[in-house]
Amino acid sequence: MMKGHLEKPLLYLTEMSEEVAIVASETTKFTRNDLSIYELACDPCRKIFRKTNLDRNDIDSVVLSTCSTLQYTSSIVSEMLGLKPKNSFRIDNLCSSGTSAIISTYAEIAAGLCDCALVIGAESGTNYAAKRLQWDLTRGSFNLPIHWASLFARTHMRKFGTTEEQMASVSVKNHRNSSKNPLALFRNKVTIEDVMKSRKISDPIKMLDCSYVCTGSSCILLASKMKAKELTDNPVWISGIGQKTICASLSHLLSRGKIGLESTQEAAREAYKMARTNPQDIDVVELHDAFTIMEIMAYEDLFFTSKGEGGKFVEQEQVSVNPRGGLLGCGHPIGCTGVAQTAEIAAQLAGRAGKTQIKGCKTGLIHNMAAAGSSSSVIILRS
Amino acid sequence: MMKGHLEKPLLYLTEMSEEVAIVASETTKFTRNDLSIYELACDPCRKIFRKTNLDRNDIDSVVLSTCSTLQYTSSIVSEMLGLKPKNSFRIDNLCSSGTSAIISTYAEIAAGLCDCALVIGAESGTNYAAKRLQWDLTRGSFNLPIHWASLFARTHMRKFGTTEEQMASVSVKNHRNSSKNPLALFRNKVTIEDVMKSRKISDPIKMLDCSYVCTGSSCILLASKMKAKELTDNPVWISGIGQKTICASLSHLLSRGKIGLESTQEAAREAYKMARTNPQDIDVVELHDAFTIMEIMAYEDLFFTSKGEGGKFVEQEQVSVNPRGGLLGCGHPIGCTGVAQTAEIAAQLAGRAGKTQIKGCKTGLIHNMAAAGSSSSVIILRS
Repeated sequence: MMKGHLEKPLLYLTEMSEEVAIVASETTKFTRNDLSIYELACDPCRKIFRKTNLDRNDIDSVVLSTCSTLQYTSSIVSEMLGLKPKNSFRIDNLCSSGTSAIISTYAEIAAGLCDCALVIGAESGTNYAAKRLQWDLTRGSFNLPIHWASLFARTHMRKFGTTEEQMASVSVKNHRNSSKNPLALFRNKVTIEDVMKSRKISDPIKMLDCSYVCTGSSCILLASKMKAKELTDNPVWISGIGQKTICASLSHLLSRGKIGLESTQEAAREAYKMARTNPQDIDVVELHDAFTIMEIMAYEDLFFTSKGEGGKFVEQEQVSVNPRGGLLGCGHPIGCTGVAQTAEIAAQLAGRAGKTQIKGCKTGLIHNMAAAGSSSSVIILRS
Repeated sequence: MMKGHLEKPLLYLTEMSEEVAIVASETTKFTRNDLSIYELACDPCRKIFRKTNLDRNDIDSVVLSTCSTLQYTSSIVSEMLGLKPKNSFRIDNLCSSGTSAIISTYAEIAAGLCDCALVIGAESGTNYAAKRLQWDLTRGSFNLPIHWASLFARTHMRKFGTTEEQMASVSVKNHRNSSKNPLALFRNKVTIEDVMKSRKISDPIKMLDCSYVCTGSSCILLASKMKAKELTDNPVWISGIGQKTICASLSHLLSRGKIGLESTQEAAREAYKMARTNPQDIDVVELHDAFTIMEIMAYEDLFFTSKGEGGKFVEQEQVSVNPRGGLLGCGHPIGCTGVAQTAEIAAQLAGRAGKTQIKGCKTGLIHNMAAAGSSSSVIILRS
C-alpha cells in the first residue's frame, strides 16, 4: 500500500482522506474588545471540555493560529488549559493561518503522530501587525487590503459588467445571515440602499462592502477515526484538502495578468479531486468575503459559476454561502477566521448550527485565503 | 492496514517511519550581524538549489521557523525564491521552533499532502522578542533563561555532586569542536581555566557556560521516498520522532519536583520506540546545550547515562556529542537552531559534514527543547 501511495499519491490520498474527523467545535462571540490572546484562546477550548466527555490527557496536539507577535503562545495556552500534549506550536500565515493550522494538524493525525488535537484560532482586533501588507514596497503607501479590493472590483466591473449593486447585495445577504447568528459582531440587517450610501473608502469600495478586523476565537477538536468513534456518534470527516501559494505581493500577483483568484482555483481543483466530489455536490460554503467583490470572485474561482458570472450568482439558491454571515457579517479576527469558518461548516454538517442551521446539508466547503488571494486553501467536509 | 494503524499506532508508525528523507541541507555562517529575515531565509535555500538538480516547481511546501514578529514571512520568502508551493506557513515555538517545523513537514509528506518540502530556520540575533520568558510572571524580574540554568546547576551539584569543572569541560569540548567548523560563531578553543575564570553571571553559571543568541539560518530539503530517489543516491531517513510539552513556565516546571528534563525523557522514549533503536546504537548527537548544565542533564534524559552521572559522561567516547560545536560553540539563532542541528546530523550521516565529519556514523539523534525544557523534541535519523 505504501508503494501505491508513493506511485499514485492522489489515489492514496483519497483512500486516506476520511481518516480524520472533526469531533467538536466552538466559537466565541466576536467583539471590538481588546482581550488577552491567552484568554481568547482558552475560552472556546473550555467550552469543548464542558460539552464533550474528553479527558484532558487525550489531547496530544495543540496548534494555535494567531498573528499575535507574542512568543510560545501555544505552550502557554496548553499550560493554562492543563494540557500536556506531545506537540504544541503556533502557526502564522495572515488570513490563511487558521486553515494552515487545520491542514497541518490533519497531517499529524493522518501520519500517525497524534490522535486527538485542538486547533485554536485567536486574534485581538487591536493587533495591528497583520493589518497592512508591509512587505509589498512597490505599492508605496497603498498597502491596506482595501486597495487591492478596489483594483479587483474595478477590473471585474470593466471586464464583466459587474455592478456596485451586485456587490452590495452580497453585503445584504451576509448581514441578513449574521442577524440570526448570536456570535456575530454585526446583528443588524442592511439594505442595498444602506450599502450604496455608506461612506466610499476606495472607489468603488464603500464601508459596507468591507469586513471589519475584530476580536474573536474558535476551536475545533480533530481526531483519528478510532478516537473519533470514542468521542462522538456524529463525526464530520475531512474529505478534501487543497492549497496553493502563488506569491506574497499584490504587484507580483497583478503582473501575472489573471483576472481571478488563481490560488483559489488551484486549491479548489485539488480539494474536489481528493474528496472525489465537484462544486454541484456542495451544500454549504464558508468563503472568504473580506470584501463583497471577493465573494463574487470566489463564486467563480471555486467553480460554482463561470468566470464573469459571479455578480449574477449572488441571489442563487443552489448552495448556501456564508450562513453564519461570513466575514462581512461576523467580523474578521484574522488568525481565527479559518478556524471559525471550519467550525461553522462542521456544526452545519453535524446539525448543531443552531439558529443558522441549513437543513439537510451533507457536504460543505471552506475557502480561506490571504493577502489579495496570493495564497488560498480549500477544505471539504462531509457528514 | 489502516485498521492496524489505528489499533496499534506505534507498529504502524514504525512501518511508516522511513518514508520521509532528508535530501540536502545547508547552513549559513553564524554571526552577530543584524540581517533581514528574508535574506537570511533565502540564503541556504539558494545554496541547495545550486548544489542539487532540483526543479523549483518540485517544491510543494515551504515551512519557515523563526521567532521574528513579521507577518506572512514564509510566503514572502517563497516569492523571493521563485517558488509556488501548495502550502507555506511559519511556525514559532521558541527554541523548539525548528524541530516543530521539521516534524510538521514530515507529517505533511507522510500524509501524502506534499512530496518535496523546504524547511527553513532563520533568526536575527537582534530579535529581542524571544530572549525573555515574559509569560512567567511568577518569576518577577528573574525571567532570563540564565536564571533557570543556575537553578538547574545548583540542584544538580547539590544532589549529584556535579562540579563546576565538569560543566566547564562541556564548554571546552564544544569550543574544540566549533574551532573546526567554518560556520561557527566561536572559532577559538577555550581551557577549563578560561571557563572557570570567565565572568560569573548568575552563580554558578559563568560567561563561557552560556550559548550566545546570534544570527543565522539553515535549510533542509525533505522528500517522499519516491521523490528522494529522483534527487539523491545518498538520502538520510527520518526514522524516529518524539515530542512532549509539559508546560510553558519555569514555576510550573519546578513545582513538579522532578530533577531533570522530563519532557526530554518522554520525547526520547517515543523516538527510540518509533525508530526501533536505543541510546547505545546512536553514533552522533546534536543536543540543546544552551548552557553547559543542559548538556549534562541531556546526557541523562536522553538515556546515554544514568541520572546523576551526566557530569562524569562529558569525556566519554561512545557517542559523538555536538560535533559542529553545539549551541555553545556555534551560537544560538533561536528559531534556526533546530533546523541547523538537523542539517548537521543529516550531513554527518550522508558523509558530507566536511571538517567536522565523524567517521562511519550511521544513526544520529537531534535533541531540541524550549524554555527550561518545558517542551522537547527528539528526532532520530539513519543513513
